[in-house]
Amino acid sequence: MTPAEATQLLEDFRAGKISQAQALAALGKEPVTDLGFAQVDQHRALRQGFPEVIFGAGKTPVQVVKIAGEILKQSDRVLITRITSAHAKALAKKFQKAKHHKEARCVVIEKRRTKKRQGNIAILSAGTSDLPVAEEAAVTAETMGNRVQRLYDVGVAGLHRLLARVEDFREANVIIVVAGMEGALPSVVAGLVDKPVIAVPTSIGYGASFDGLAALLGMLNSCGSGVTVVNIDNGFGAAYAASQINALTN
Amino acid sequence: MTPAEATQLLEDFRAGKISQAQALAALGKEPVTDLGFAQVDQHRALRQGFPEVIFGAGKTPVQVVKIAGEILKQSDRVLITRITSAHAKALAKKFQKAKHHKEARCVVIEKRRTKKRQGNIAILSAGTSDLPVAEEAAVTAETMGNRVQRLYDVGVAGLHRLLARVEDFREANVIIVVAGMEGALPSVVAGLVDKPVIAVPTSIGYGASFDGLAALLGMLNSCGSGVTVVNIDNGFGAAYAASQINALTN
Amino acid sequence: MTPAEATQLLEDFRAGKISQAQALAALGKEPVTDLGFAQVDQHRALRQGFPEVIFGAGKTPVQVVKIAGEILKQSDRVLITRITSAHAKALAKKFQKAKHHKEARCVVIEKRRTKKRQGNIAILSAGTSDLPVAEEAAVTAETMGNRVQRLYDVGVAGLHRLLARVEDFREANVIIVVAGMEGALPSVVAGLVDKPVIAVPTSIGYGASFDGLAALLGMLNSCGSGVTVVNIDNGFGAAYAASQINALTN
Amino acid sequence: MTPAEATQLLEDFRAGKISQAQALAALGKEPVTDLGFAQVDQHRALRQGFPEVIFGAGKTPVQVVKIAGEILKQSDRVLITRITSAHAKALAKKFQKAKHHKEARCVVIEKRRTKKRQGNIAILSAGTSDLPVAEEAAVTAETMGNRVQRLYDVGVAGLHRLLARVEDFREANVIIVVAGMEGALPSVVAGLVDKPVIAVPTSIGYGASFDGLAALLGMLNSCGSGVTVVNIDNGFGAAYAASQINALTN
Amino acid sequence: MTPAEATQLLEDFRAGKISQAQALAALGKEPVTDLGFAQVDQHRALRQGFPEVIFGAGKTPVQVVKIAGEILKQSDRVLITRITSAHAKALAKKFQKAKHHKEARCVVIEKRRTKKRQGNIAILSAGTSDLPVAEEAAVTAETMGNRVQRLYDVGVAGLHRLLARVEDFREANVIIVVAGMEGALPSVVAGLVDKPVIAVPTSIGYGASFDGLAALLGMLNSCGSGVTVVNIDNGFGAAYAASQINALTN
Amino acid sequence: MTPAEATQLLEDFRAGKISQAQALAALGKEPVTDLGFAQVDQHRALRQGFPEVIFGAGKTPVQVVKIAGEILKQSDRVLITRITSAHAKALAKKFQKAKHHKEARCVVIEKRRTKKRQGNIAILSAGTSDLPVAEEAAVTAETMGNRVQRLYDVGVAGLHRLLARVEDFREANVIIVVAGMEGALPSVVAGLVDKPVIAVPTSIGYGASFDGLAALLGMLNSCGSGVTVVNIDNGFGAAYAASQINALTN
Amino acid sequence: MTPAEATQLLEDFRAGKISQAQALAALGKEPVTDLGFAQVDQHRALRQGFPEVIFGAGKTPVQVVKIAGEILKQSDRVLITRITSAHAKALAKKFQKAKHHKEARCVVIEKRRTKKRQGNIAILSAGTSDLPVAEEAAVTAETMGNRVQRLYDVGVAGLHRLLARVEDFREANVIIVVAGMEGALPSVVAGLVDKPVIAVPTSIGYGASFDGLAALLGMLNSCGSGVTVVNIDNGFGAAYAASQINALTN
Amino acid sequence: MTPAEATQLLEDFRAGKISQAQALAALGKEPVTDLGFAQVDQHRALRQGFPEVIFGAGKTPVQVVKIAGEILKQSDRVLITRITSAHAKALAKKFQKAKHHKEARCVVIEKRRTKKRQGNIAILSAGTSDLPVAEEAAVTAETMGNRVQRLYDVGVAGLHRLLARVEDFREANVIIVVAGMEGALPSVVAGLVDKPVIAVPTSIGYGASFDGLAALLGMLNSCGSGVTVVNIDNGFGAAYAASQINALTN
Repeated sequence: MTPAEATQLLEDFRAGKISQAQALAALGKEPVTDLGFAQVDQHRALRQGFPEVIFGAGKTPVQVVKIAGEILKQSDRVLITRITSAHAKALAKKFQKAKHHKEARCVVIEKRRTKKRQGNIAILSAGTSDLPVAEEAAVTAETMGNRVQRLYDVGVAGLHRLLARVEDFREANVIIVVAGMEGALPSVVAGLVDKPVIAVPTSIGYGASFDGLAALLGMLNSCGSGVTVVNIDNGFGAAYAASQINALTN
Repeated sequence: MTPAEATQLLEDFRAGKISQAQALAALGKEPVTDLGFAQVDQHRALRQGFPEVIFGAGKTPVQVVKIAGEILKQSDRVLITRITSAHAKALAKKFQKAKHHKEARCVVIEKRRTKKRQGNIAILSAGTSDLPVAEEAAVTAETMGNRVQRLYDVGVAGLHRLLARVEDFREANVIIVVAGMEGALPSVVAGLVDKPVIAVPTSIGYGASFDGLAALLGMLNSCGSGVTVVNIDNGFGAAYAASQINALTN
Repeated sequence: MTPAEATQLLEDFRAGKISQAQALAALGKEPVTDLGFAQVDQHRALRQGFPEVIFGAGKTPVQVVKIAGEILKQSDRVLITRITSAHAKALAKKFQKAKHHKEARCVVIEKRRTKKRQGNIAILSAGTSDLPVAEEAAVTAETMGNRVQRLYDVGVAGLHRLLARVEDFREANVIIVVAGMEGALPSVVAGLVDKPVIAVPTSIGYGASFDGLAALLGMLNSCGSGVTVVNIDNGFGAAYAASQINALTN
Repeated sequence: MTPAEATQLLEDFRAGKISQAQALAALGKEPVTDLGFAQVDQHRALRQGFPEVIFGAGKTPVQVVKIAGEILKQSDRVLITRITSAHAKALAKKFQKAKHHKEARCVVIEKRRTKKRQGNIAILSAGTSDLPVAEEAAVTAETMGNRVQRLYDVGVAGLHRLLARVEDFREANVIIVVAGMEGALPSVVAGLVDKPVIAVPTSIGYGASFDGLAALLGMLNSCGSGVTVVNIDNGFGAAYAASQINALTN
Repeated sequence: MTPAEATQLLEDFRAGKISQAQALAALGKEPVTDLGFAQVDQHRALRQGFPEVIFGAGKTPVQVVKIAGEILKQSDRVLITRITSAHAKALAKKFQKAKHHKEARCVVIEKRRTKKRQGNIAILSAGTSDLPVAEEAAVTAETMGNRVQRLYDVGVAGLHRLLARVEDFREANVIIVVAGMEGALPSVVAGLVDKPVIAVPTSIGYGASFDGLAALLGMLNSCGSGVTVVNIDNGFGAAYAASQINALTN
Repeated sequence: MTPAEATQLLEDFRAGKISQAQALAALGKEPVTDLGFAQVDQHRALRQGFPEVIFGAGKTPVQVVKIAGEILKQSDRVLITRITSAHAKALAKKFQKAKHHKEARCVVIEKRRTKKRQGNIAILSAGTSDLPVAEEAAVTAETMGNRVQRLYDVGVAGLHRLLARVEDFREANVIIVVAGMEGALPSVVAGLVDKPVIAVPTSIGYGASFDGLAALLGMLNSCGSGVTVVNIDNGFGAAYAASQINALTN
Repeated sequence: MTPAEATQLLEDFRAGKISQAQALAALGKEPVTDLGFAQVDQHRALRQGFPEVIFGAGKTPVQVVKIAGEILKQSDRVLITRITSAHAKALAKKFQKAKHHKEARCVVIEKRRTKKRQGNIAILSAGTSDLPVAEEAAVTAETMGNRVQRLYDVGVAGLHRLLARVEDFREANVIIVVAGMEGALPSVVAGLVDKPVIAVPTSIGYGASFDGLAALLGMLNSCGSGVTVVNIDNGFGAAYAASQINALTN
Repeated sequence: MTPAEATQLLEDFRAGKISQAQALAALGKEPVTDLGFAQVDQHRALRQGFPEVIFGAGKTPVQVVKIAGEILKQSDRVLITRITSAHAKALAKKFQKAKHHKEARCVVIEKRRTKKRQGNIAILSAGTSDLPVAEEAAVTAETMGNRVQRLYDVGVAGLHRLLARVEDFREANVIIVVAGMEGALPSVVAGLVDKPVIAVPTSIGYGASFDGLAALLGMLNSCGSGVTVVNIDNGFGAAYAASQINALTN
């Protein structure tokens, strides 16, 4: 509830338009649909500029379809992340407009095409194996109304690959850098640009990568100023933050 | 070197204005002053919109004074972080305009007052003990030309303290949230606003806080969308990123 | 053996009713049935107010059925936790009154319905994925004779969902809070009530959640006073402690 | 603000007794005194049955004295934990009734003697070195109005010491068990009683105790049902929870 | 090579019975059969009183059968640990005397029955789930010529079960204590006896047991004097050490 | 691009042989073929003396075949590591000269036989289970043009096995030591030779080996001078470094 | 209380020699002197063959002197470990026979000289820096009545130093091996002897030794059979276990 | 003892020139001087091409002076690392030729100047704070007879600083890269050269650098081929290995 709405609510109560019980309830509550296993928050699109995103992992296809349906009652689009092909099938069967982004492990359902904002989000990945995370970020950013510039497999071991593309990512408003193993790419990128860099460590690697811990620690200790970090493999989170930043410029 | 400068450089060479050796050198190098113990980067202010920041910890007062002097030859201001009172004294003695921010453990030297950007950066801290980190962020952000809104001691255990101040931080372009112990504040804040939230875990706590690890992990796993994280106690880094974001809106 | 029983034992020995060997044996022993692979403790129900609970994980269906049968010789009910469907089937086949709580991964066998105590135990979960753990807690608490109030999917990222339900859990004698990821919910809840809060970290999350470690550390460092913590995913343990507390009020 | 108070507030507004601005402010705020470095919460005593406790570590003696003074304006007593002798001296100088509990590293200031509740809290420690933590728990529990039974140096390596005292702690409503090293005592105690056991791991030990981690993990994995755990060395937290539990019986 | 053998070797060389090359080779080498994938050490039985043991995990059934065959050329018995049923079948097919100990996950092949030493090794386990590790210890100890006393499911949460059996393990020369979860049993046992206690942490548990780490740390920090520890789940190693100790008494 | 090439490039530009755009592009770029999912670096063979190696894990057989084909357009050989049998089949089908090294989990495709350098690389393994890693090292070293001396199953528990082979590895230019469990072998080997020792920890072990962490830490703390370490199970990396060292002697 | 004593106790009660209260008390209790801060166990010497040892760290000199005095009332000797020079002085002042072992950081007070057992305990250390731990083991073992053979600075990096001394430690009944850094020495020693080896990791090292963790993990994963391990720097514990083992041979 | 020496020894024995006891002793022993607290190995210079290095940390100045004196009896030079100024003073007083390298925390005593090998070792450091470790490496390498090229403060955040110096380190035979924080520099360097790169993580950083763990993990997971790693802050070890490699080219 916005402050303006709260003010209005109190006025309505004073004027006798609503009862005390109604005012009390409204002050403490916002519309939430209870599906038993989940509370679907209808007003999030209004409050935060984007509808509830469904994190598919650990939910059944049936649950995901139900929650998606509930959200689409009040929203034009929904993003479902970390899905399996079973989720994708169930969603495709129910929603004609469901689009399955395989590499990104996402489904997007849009009633109408999202209008894109001015300004790019650049997404860099260090290696080929980081693609699923990079694509999760890319699909999320696009679904949230951003133009995305993809620059994949430009890790620091072959510096010329990266330097050859500097101009491509220097123009972006925000840069998402996806890297596993030692996670060195964000430090190098941050030294080449003056835009915010969001680093996404991935679980790519083996042995002492400890499922992404090495990349995570590397990024947190980045000597490059302006680097912020999200959870391991959290392409969605990076894109969400990048979209919030990109929206500031519009 | 910007792309435009590189283009110019090649033209100058073709036109015979500079020798091949000069072109080759210029293409691979940017002005760096070698102090023996440090390479001071003169062009960083141009390249990244902010001069070299000196991380005081582990440097002697003499070294810090020398590097600061070198930077001030080409820049209007310099920020020195993580200082002791010995550093502060040495800097005050050498630079008349040195201003010591005690709680923030910083010194700022500005030849002339920085013009402030439009748009606020809000800085929230969960507890009283998080103040040094919050102030490091605040001083950094101000030195980088931002207006700062401070909201301290608004941790989640006393939710009404936070809710009472929501309107204050909802207006900011970026929100820095500083918290130790379980680091829950960013998750709650991210659910109340639609602006980027930068979380700074602090080493405040004891026992199973493991010097900030608990807060760091909590923030990385935040259920609040749009939260990005910096290193433990890294108030400077959070403010640097926040300033880059805030600058996008201007 | 209670102190009263020990006193009686010594009296019987003095009076010659039992031999010295009998007294010596009785003083050191309580009735335990040896199944070869397990020692079934018949007197636990008397001593601790609740029969032996069978932790199903790592035991074969045959073993579980045998131990359950042994316990039911002297007790009216038995709770089997962490079961698979194979355990459930084997128990259903043998015991007519076996009730399978699927989401909770438990079977309860009660010869007659347990009488409920006065006073509620409220069980809150932060997300949908935390339900199996929350339900293990709920079924355990109910089987131990408590009334349970369930409030699921009320995590801190959507604070209004939680605030809308405050009155529901403020009335409870004890509150169990189940949360994965950053585990921030107990801190917020503890600030809203003056009753004991038992926090259950779950293994829900990915990457830097490290299978529940992030939530566990967060809860141990909770800034909310009165929060105690159990092992990751230990819904049973939380409910057992909550039941002991609730029993104190009767 | 209690639900009753919120209801009254709305009625007052409807009746025109207070303005809309007043209602709006009151709904979102509770009385908090801003000392610049801390927000002192005046209504906590009402809301949670106990005044703000001051965690002394990391605060200056001057800050502690100021916060204590602010709290005592509206409350009869205040507890300051984790203090040094400098804090103790500063408090003694300012507050005549300040009582320094040296081993517990606490100061208590009580305007009048707290009335004790019915029912004991038993506090057991495994070793001599665990005393500071056990005493922090004891002083906290007493200040919160509980009778405390101390049983120290009864670790499991000398089981007869513990068994000799069983009757002493079986009568308590709640049992706090303080132990370092392998932290085995709570498991043994939980098997001997049917009351809630709150385990406090201590940082006592060396080498692979990793500053209390071994004890913490041991207690979280306790095979004794009904054991809940607090942070390493957190005697205060254990006593706070124990007091909440003990209060339920009154 | 024993010192006596080295002395003899040099005498034979001096007397011209063997060549210099032979002496040099013999001094640096002992008989080892190279199977390509493994060096089978024929003299270990002589040197250390027990033949090479085959650690089955990670070896194919064919490899295990080959190594076993090679060992049995010079030795009367061989122990194969950590086997699957595939290993057991392959061994049974090849060696008539192969005996499969299922719970212990071992096969023993003995040409003739081992003569047992005087003196017992007692093996205690805390829970039912610890049996595979306890049995690996028991079978190893028996194969190495020791009498074994098994006392299973006597964990500290039901102290009377343990106390009822004290006399049984007090008579042993060495006591092996197998426990998972918090690993508290060895501390309690060490306080009841004056014999060496070898603690075996098991990976039994979940969540914060971290696959046996909690039990391992607990045992290393045992407050009971005389406790030594082996690797998680290493029943074999504990029995090997116990057998060396028991052999000292004969 | 080598310095000589850069000099030539500038000369060509000055002489008008190439355009400014061509010069600018050439200065920042080296030939890379973009396959969409991967950037294949054609000049690496020239720049680093060895073609791009394909890390098979996490890539599909189709992707691996495509990348291999692209590399072989400009190079005589390619090494594919960490493959499954599916990769091996796909490669064998496409490339007639593909050679599958099963134990090493590698495929090598060589258009013509590599000429071997002078000087040996010795590869020692502590146990039988370390063979896959040792073989990955051996195949890599051979493919890079080195002669390899294999000495397997020579761990420190049977010191005579190692001492018997000292002369074999003393002659090598570099020694790779592969060991799991406690990883003690490199320390012993480094004390016996004066050549560089590269230690490869393996994930062989269980319990407190923590998937190779124990061996890794052991090797990093080696008391033997001249020991350097690579990632857990990284036979390829050790051989790559060893080959660079061996090449220095030619 | 021994079984014989328990039998006698019951007989005395039956015969009316003691009251029921007396019997009940005696069955549950053994003589313990309560000093307020410590429970001194007078019968431990009888029960376990050695008096209470005082762990000096964390106790004041006054406390240590008091406990030592209490123990010496019923025992002929006492060992105080982990002392500072302040403890040593206080003890020397009070007890004429106090002997300070500086390197071992121990004081021993013996009313009369302990008679030595047959059979040696060998104590090996890998480096010079491990001496304090090795000496703590040596002094403990000697005070418990054992002959000790010291072999220091025989680490695996200089294998000939160790091999030169093999005969010296092959004769011992038990071998204690003290090592920091990678902790490889016990594995090598265990391969050379057929006696129990007790490994003591030390905190000697830096960086990735993580205060002894590397050595601890190395020893737990030892490929040498018969190695058991104690806590980091726990020379006392190793010697206590070794003494129990050595005592078995007498 | 070299094989040739062993052969000679046996011949002398056969010829009766030495007794059997003498031969046996000689075969098992090499010259070691026992100082009580240390075994000084006189033949290491012969065996490994470099005399015993003294690790100063944890040794007293007196001990260090004694060991240095013993080594200098048979060797021309000695290197003492990790010293304090107290060590430096004691050494300067005793040995006229002692040279104190302050930043490197080393003393070198050389009877005559070491002749330098052909071929450079390049030493790069990422930041100013890494200098003590880089200098330890530099002084060690020089003392071992190598020419050293120092390139300091060339971290990846200012890539142009590094690229400007590429030609300087491309000519070296081996490259040592010293870096703290995220430790990204070795990956970048390894992509620019085809020589062996030895990475030294430093403990420089704070928070999630965990005293060098982040840099260590980053380097172990380096995507740059040919990178090997030594312990945190182990400049000595890196230089020792680099010197062994450099020696191969001579």
